[in-house]
Amino acid sequence: MTKKADRDQIRRQNRSIILQTLRRNGPLARIDLGQITRLSPATVTAITSDLLDQGLIEGIESEEPKAHLSRGRPRSLLQLNPDAACVLGIRLSVNAIDIALANFSGETVRTSSIAFDSSAADHENFPEVLIAAIRKFIAEAGLAEKKIKEIGVAAQGVVELSSGCVVWSPAFSGQNIPIVEPLQAAFNARCLLSNDTNMITEALHWSDPGTYSGTFAVVMLDYGVGMGLYLDNKLFAGASGKAAEFGHANHVPGGALCRCGKRGCMEAYLSDYALVRAASHLPETTDPDDVEAGVAGLAALITKAQQGEEPALEAFAKAGRVLGYGLARLLAIIDPSRIVLTGAAMRAFSFMEKGMEEGLEEALVADLRQNFVIDVMPWEEDFIRRGLIAQAMERLDIGYSGSQKPKRAAPAETERASAGE
Amino acid sequence: MTKKADRDQIRRQNRSIILQTLRRNGPLARIDLGQITRLSPATVTAITSDLLDQGLIEGIESEEPKAHLSRGRPRSLLQLNPDAACVLGIRLSVNAIDIALANFSGETVRTSSIAFDSSAADHENFPEVLIAAIRKFIAEAGLAEKKIKEIGVAAQGVVELSSGCVVWSPAFSGQNIPIVEPLQAAFNARCLLSNDTNMITEALHWSDPGTYSGTFAVVMLDYGVGMGLYLDNKLFAGASGKAAEFGHANHVPGGALCRCGKRGCMEAYLSDYALVRAASHLPETTDPDDVEAGVAGLAALITKAQQGEEPALEAFAKAGRVLGYGLARLLAIIDPSRIVLTGAAMRAFSFMEKGMEEGLEEALVADLRQNFVIDVMPWEEDFIRRGLIAQAMERLDIGYSGSQKPKRAAPAETERASAGE
Repeated sequence: MTKKADRDQIRRQNRSIILQTLRRNGPLARIDLGQITRLSPATVTAITSDLLDQGLIEGIESEEPKAHLSRGRPRSLLQLNPDAACVLGIRLSVNAIDIALANFSGETVRTSSIAFDSSAADHENFPEVLIAAIRKFIAEAGLAEKKIKEIGVAAQGVVELSSGCVVWSPAFSGQNIPIVEPLQAAFNARCLLSNDTNMITEALHWSDPGTYSGTFAVVMLDYGVGMGLYLDNKLFAGASGKAAEFGHANHVPGGALCRCGKRGCMEAYLSDYALVRAASHLPETTDPDDVEAGVAGLAALITKAQQGEEPALEAFAKAGRVLGYGLARLLAIIDPSRIVLTGAAMRAFSFMEKGMEEGLEEALVADLRQNFVIDVMPWEEDFIRRGLIAQAMERLDIGYSGSQKPKRAAPAETERASAGE
Repeated sequence: MTKKADRDQIRRQNRSIILQTLRRNGPLARIDLGQITRLSPATVTAITSDLLDQGLIEGIESEEPKAHLSRGRPRSLLQLNPDAACVLGIRLSVNAIDIALANFSGETVRTSSIAFDSSAADHENFPEVLIAAIRKFIAEAGLAEKKIKEIGVAAQGVVELSSGCVVWSPAFSGQNIPIVEPLQAAFNARCLLSNDTNMITEALHWSDPGTYSGTFAVVMLDYGVGMGLYLDNKLFAGASGKAAEFGHANHVPGGALCRCGKRGCMEAYLSDYALVRAASHLPETTDPDDVEAGVAGLAALITKAQQGEEPALEAFAKAGRVLGYGLARLLAIIDPSRIVLTGAAMRAFSFMEKGMEEGLEEALVADLRQNFVIDVMPWEEDFIRRGLIAQAMERLDIGYSGSQKPKRAAPAETERASAGE
């Protein structure tokens, strides 16, 4: 059934659009803000007037008037006030807590990587470890804690949005690690927990919405196998926030042993330990914990493939075929227009490509293998951080817009807007 | 990025909500309309005034005033004008075109099933066959063609929303049968083509939005295997409108031969021919066209299972296990809160259930097998028709709302509204 929409929602969306446009584009004149957002001059004037009052944006004078708009004097521009608020983007991975601080303009102003012991981390001790790491980071940044308005956390593995817990992750020995509740209580900031591949997906959309919109999927082959789904122009997290666990979707009943304990998961063919296990000709039932793999093992295997070593080449070719089957299932069920492949293993994509094409062709009827592209994206660790910050900023904007003051007349602003036009 | 919302969109949504509420509830007083929709009395009055002007709704007097609202005289109620417009819901299946006519109140007032020869139907001749069948139906109903405002068509198989074509279906011998364009040209009505399982999904949401909302999936086991996905409160059709082809998602590489020509598709284990092939101990590579199955074959097999015949029981148990694996993949990727199983094969669910539970347990780590329910829904052919009509009506409402006149003062209506309150 059609949803009820209300004026308040529109106002919040429009404010959020103005803030995001300034964050994406940098300082803008009101007239340009109106052209980019397609909001009316009256709406732009009313909203920016409120935002100026709230100290979220500030007026500056352009030093170099653009030729086509020049009237012989500097133009009045608007920009975000970088000090209006801060957000933290935190990535939890094996033995490392990576923290980034971004200002209201969306610029990362400080990052830090803090070591912890994944093998000893569980639901009882990890929240304290995390809070202490954040406190130390904030103190070193010389920042007041109350300046932190949003905290975005990404973790590898199975995370549950609804409970704010990491259900299972290679970063922890224990299960069901609470993240959102302890952080919100400690810092009086809103907190959102995400799967790390979801944050890559969000970052792609943020950095290039023209290419990464509509319905697309991101598959990350790295330590583990991750997936992010962007469906009908929105990041999709599933009913309980656990989608999309591509890595634990079954490939073959009774197949290779997975780290999760089940047999035949995609991950048991595609992740670091799976590739090393296959290249070493170890049985598929070899316990993943008994395989020396990880980031270093995967890198060594890629080097061997580059040197033409047959077992390494075979392992990648076989993994490529499994990947083709997995993508075929995704195409059948989701029908994305684009699949982005990324992660450390993508450096070996040339050794997987042929197998992947074969798998796709074998697994899926031609009618369903149309109208999509596969992109291979070189891996940048930065993507997760950028996604976290983009998402936190969007929540922040909507939050500010929700608590706005009633609209009021602002003659001075109206004049300035006219002058800029 | 946040989407721009505008006033016009809100107005259209609110008008659509009012129309849908009257269709779902029957005649209502303005005050009750306001309570159900949570729209303000002023909004309800303004919108209903416009709708009365347009002849889309009409005022009637209630014969039995409700006790708690009674002021000693009949209450003024609003209802949809059943003659304001009509929609057609058309289902295309093997050898049959089923047409239903619904009035603006959403009541089905006439149905007809017209035979055609699926084995001879292709992209050149079928559009004419379909148009002739519809013309005959409209003439027999004594209806003016221009009264038909929306045509919803559902077909089995792979349909492509974006092109309005049936890419592949057991109902046709040819491929890429154009549906939307020829019907729109012939009847000057809007037309939307859907997968039939999508229409069941839509019908479930329409009939019980409390249960069927958020993120859920419908799996239909019948002649073929269908799936409908409702994600984040919306029917999901994929980037090109071909989702969700669960039946052609691969189960086992190199597995049983599917009707699509590929090996190992879910359909090759779960559909009528697959079940009959397995129970007859025919090789998995037997051409589906060489298996005597269909609706009658499936019904006969269910009877055999009910009589305790071992090959039939084994075939259903094995299919159940494959279904469990398929649902496990869906849970991993989509994380739905509910999976609805339906279709003719559901009469044999008791013979599949244990296998399904085993498949689910084998295929998916326990952390991902939580927070969902599986419903088994007895199959009603009506569901597809109801979904078609509900969807066509929603498009109709939005369409009317888009072409509304500017709001104007309507003192007579306002008075009547006050009297009703």
